[in-house]
Amino acid sequence: MSIITALDTFDIRFPTSLELDGSDAMNPDPDYSAAYLILRTDAGDGHEGHGFVFTIGRGNEVEQAAIDALKDHVLGRDVEKLLGDMGATWKLLTHDSQLRWLGPEKGVMHMAIGAVINALWDLKAKRAGLPLWELLAGMSPEDLVALVDFRYLTDALTPAEALGILRAAEPGREARRSRLLAEGYPAYTTTPGWLGYSDGKLSRLAKEAVADGFTQIKLKVGASLEDDVRRVRVAREAVGPEIRIAVDANQRWDVQEAIDWMAHLAAYDIAWIEEPTSPDDILGHAAIARGVAPIPVATGEHVQNRVVFKQMLQAGALSVLQIDAARVAGVNENIAILLLAAKFGVRVCPHAGGVGLCEAVQHLSMFDYVAVSGTKEERMIEFVDHLHEHFVDPVDVHAGSYWPPAKPGAGNEMLRETLAEYSFPDGPVWKDKH
Amino acid sequence: MSIITALDTFDIRFPTSLELDGSDAMNPDPDYSAAYLILRTDAGDGHEGHGFVFTIGRGNEVEQAAIDALKDHVLGRDVEKLLGDMGATWKLLTHDSQLRWLGPEKGVMHMAIGAVINALWDLKAKRAGLPLWELLAGMSPEDLVALVDFRYLTDALTPAEALGILRAAEPGREARRSRLLAEGYPAYTTTPGWLGYSDGKLSRLAKEAVADGFTQIKLKVGASLEDDVRRVRVAREAVGPEIRIAVDANQRWDVQEAIDWMAHLAAYDIAWIEEPTSPDDILGHAAIARGVAPIPVATGEHVQNRVVFKQMLQAGALSVLQIDAARVAGVNENIAILLLAAKFGVRVCPHAGGVGLCEAVQHLSMFDYVAVSGTKEERMIEFVDHLHEHFVDPVDVHAGSYWPPAKPGAGNEMLRETLAEYSFPDGPVWKDKH
Repeated sequence: MSIITALDTFDIRFPTSLELDGSDAMNPDPDYSAAYLILRTDAGDGHEGHGFVFTIGRGNEVEQAAIDALKDHVLGRDVEKLLGDMGATWKLLTHDSQLRWLGPEKGVMHMAIGAVINALWDLKAKRAGLPLWELLAGMSPEDLVALVDFRYLTDALTPAEALGILRAAEPGREARRSRLLAEGYPAYTTTPGWLGYSDGKLSRLAKEAVADGFTQIKLKVGASLEDDVRRVRVAREAVGPEIRIAVDANQRWDVQEAIDWMAHLAAYDIAWIEEPTSPDDILGHAAIARGVAPIPVATGEHVQNRVVFKQMLQAGALSVLQIDAARVAGVNENIAILLLAAKFGVRVCPHAGGVGLCEAVQHLSMFDYVAVSGTKEERMIEFVDHLHEHFVDPVDVHAGSYWPPAKPGAGNEMLRETLAEYSFPDGPVWKDKH
Repeated sequence: MSIITALDTFDIRFPTSLELDGSDAMNPDPDYSAAYLILRTDAGDGHEGHGFVFTIGRGNEVEQAAIDALKDHVLGRDVEKLLGDMGATWKLLTHDSQLRWLGPEKGVMHMAIGAVINALWDLKAKRAGLPLWELLAGMSPEDLVALVDFRYLTDALTPAEALGILRAAEPGREARRSRLLAEGYPAYTTTPGWLGYSDGKLSRLAKEAVADGFTQIKLKVGASLEDDVRRVRVAREAVGPEIRIAVDANQRWDVQEAIDWMAHLAAYDIAWIEEPTSPDDILGHAAIARGVAPIPVATGEHVQNRVVFKQMLQAGALSVLQIDAARVAGVNENIAILLLAAKFGVRVCPHAGGVGLCEAVQHLSMFDYVAVSGTKEERMIEFVDHLHEHFVDPVDVHAGSYWPPAKPGAGNEMLRETLAEYSFPDGPVWKDKH
């Protein structure tokens, strides 16, 4: 028997606000950050579990404190037992009766649980010698269903229905695994579309994106209608009629405002409108979806948990569901959300970018393709070309696709040098900024 | 000009889990706690602003860290400016573009903002020499509307509609103020109904509650159907047919389970079913409301913000709206919620209990009666007889009513001795428990 001997946390921040990369209508000056943790064991196999919550700067220390608050649930515990029943482990962390008050199941505390859960999955995948997507795609339908907490879901998805979805996908797993390795998984890029960029830079980057093989780009909108109309036109002229252009308002609008604003952009053949309003506003998203049809509504990067996703699906509030690797309580909850999306027949196009979100979320889409929805039709993973150099196993995105990671683990692990250099507030990068 | 010179935070915990007071179906062993803060100024008037987030133990230090993360927004700031435009101050804290990522507007970070906002209101009321309810009830409709952030609300409530509600209530303010001072504000009690109590204790406490003048009691349910049926029967036999009995499931059920369970309790004339399922499940609450009618559905103590309350009202998901003083972002957001409730004609019956929630929330109901809804018909504030002795201005509840506080402030201030004695983990109460 081996036990968890350490849960060490780190406050890692990148001074990205000095560039205008990453700026949008609600987040003008993000410093991309990670509340990061490493789990260690006494197994003597050299394996560690890494996980993180992505934040955009201030408050990263609060998220770190929340991860620290979970230490008692894992330190000294039997590793095989924790990893052997990840469904029970998820409930152990999520249903702590005192910590639950701080959510429940939302915000700082819920994301911290996600980071610990993801670190445990990272450890489990490394011990299995498999990348996470392969580990998950090799599990039996019964074992996958056991990972999901169906509390608050059964009016939309029962365990039996989930089992049915997974069993239906089982016969095609091997063929899809081969196709995935041969074809990759489609990507789209947000690199051209940040608000801070000039029209010239937008046009140049949009053309580069097409040359790089991307078939969809995304533009940030919502700060100025006049600018948005011009920028979408510039982008459309740059990429031609065949490339999809999505727009992202980052929660900027009220319901009617979203409908009115989008009426001015509709002429440019918009692939989707993302986060038109508050991520909490299920009924608002549903009203917007009716008001902007046939433009699809996309949301999810700030949707707090599976209960809100359930309602978004029940209400017809979205037609593009954007999971995020570090917003909900980790891999288990994202599997619940993938199953809900499959039940409702809604496509999943993950949010990524930030720090490490691309590295982490690709595993979930690839698992979904092989073992859940069984399709990558009209699905793609966001790609932003930022900060990948800090990861032990950075994404391989080329020819407009993500290529399946082969290294064991969940993709969460940063380089040791990065953890030292970008440590806040005392790492060398930050020391001279104060 | 005076400035804020200090924001000091405290981790205060009461070892309530040693009793069974406060136990329910989801919170078996709470240690009632407060992440507490004191604001100080250099005005030389001796006034401080006190505020807190109520938690139930573990994680209180995370909430404290979140309050600490807000220091830069108030330290060194002009007191008159901060307090003179509390609408702008609310936006300053809530829309910090980096901290917002940790919610947005929910969970640990949002509650921390609420504590700081409430401390500023406490300071403002003390400087005005008024209890908070009188301070608010004396403000003009225009100034009250300026306290509210209407972002994400305008599809349900516009500033003009809010102004109309407040103006319509204006002529009757003085008469209702007099009635409030003469009659008090109705209370109901949860003291008899905790899950850990024997039938004998339940019956005895229920009879005592009636003798004390309460016309409604509340029982915790949801752990065992058989026990619940028996306990509700015991309570009904104890209080007779005239006293209202509400039940509270503390989020224990899925949608259909709630409907089925309540069918077994309906015979006992249930005043409302509270928190039947996840506080995030607007559509679930609406389905339950249809399924258990005519029993009213009550919820709110865990509803994260005004956007979710808005939808609860839009969907007909509740007919008793339970604001909480320390869950949303403070007085300003609760005013938005009171206005939404008034617009939809839904009665507000605040959640209270915990630590200091009674002391704080009474001000909001009294303000609502005088200046917003203009009625206390079928409305009442929860009362739990716990921990009031730790407050400088403890509630005065007698003859089944809350009696209006007269001391200046918002009711949040704890005794100095309490802050010293119950400090976690080093205060005398906790020191020998480790």
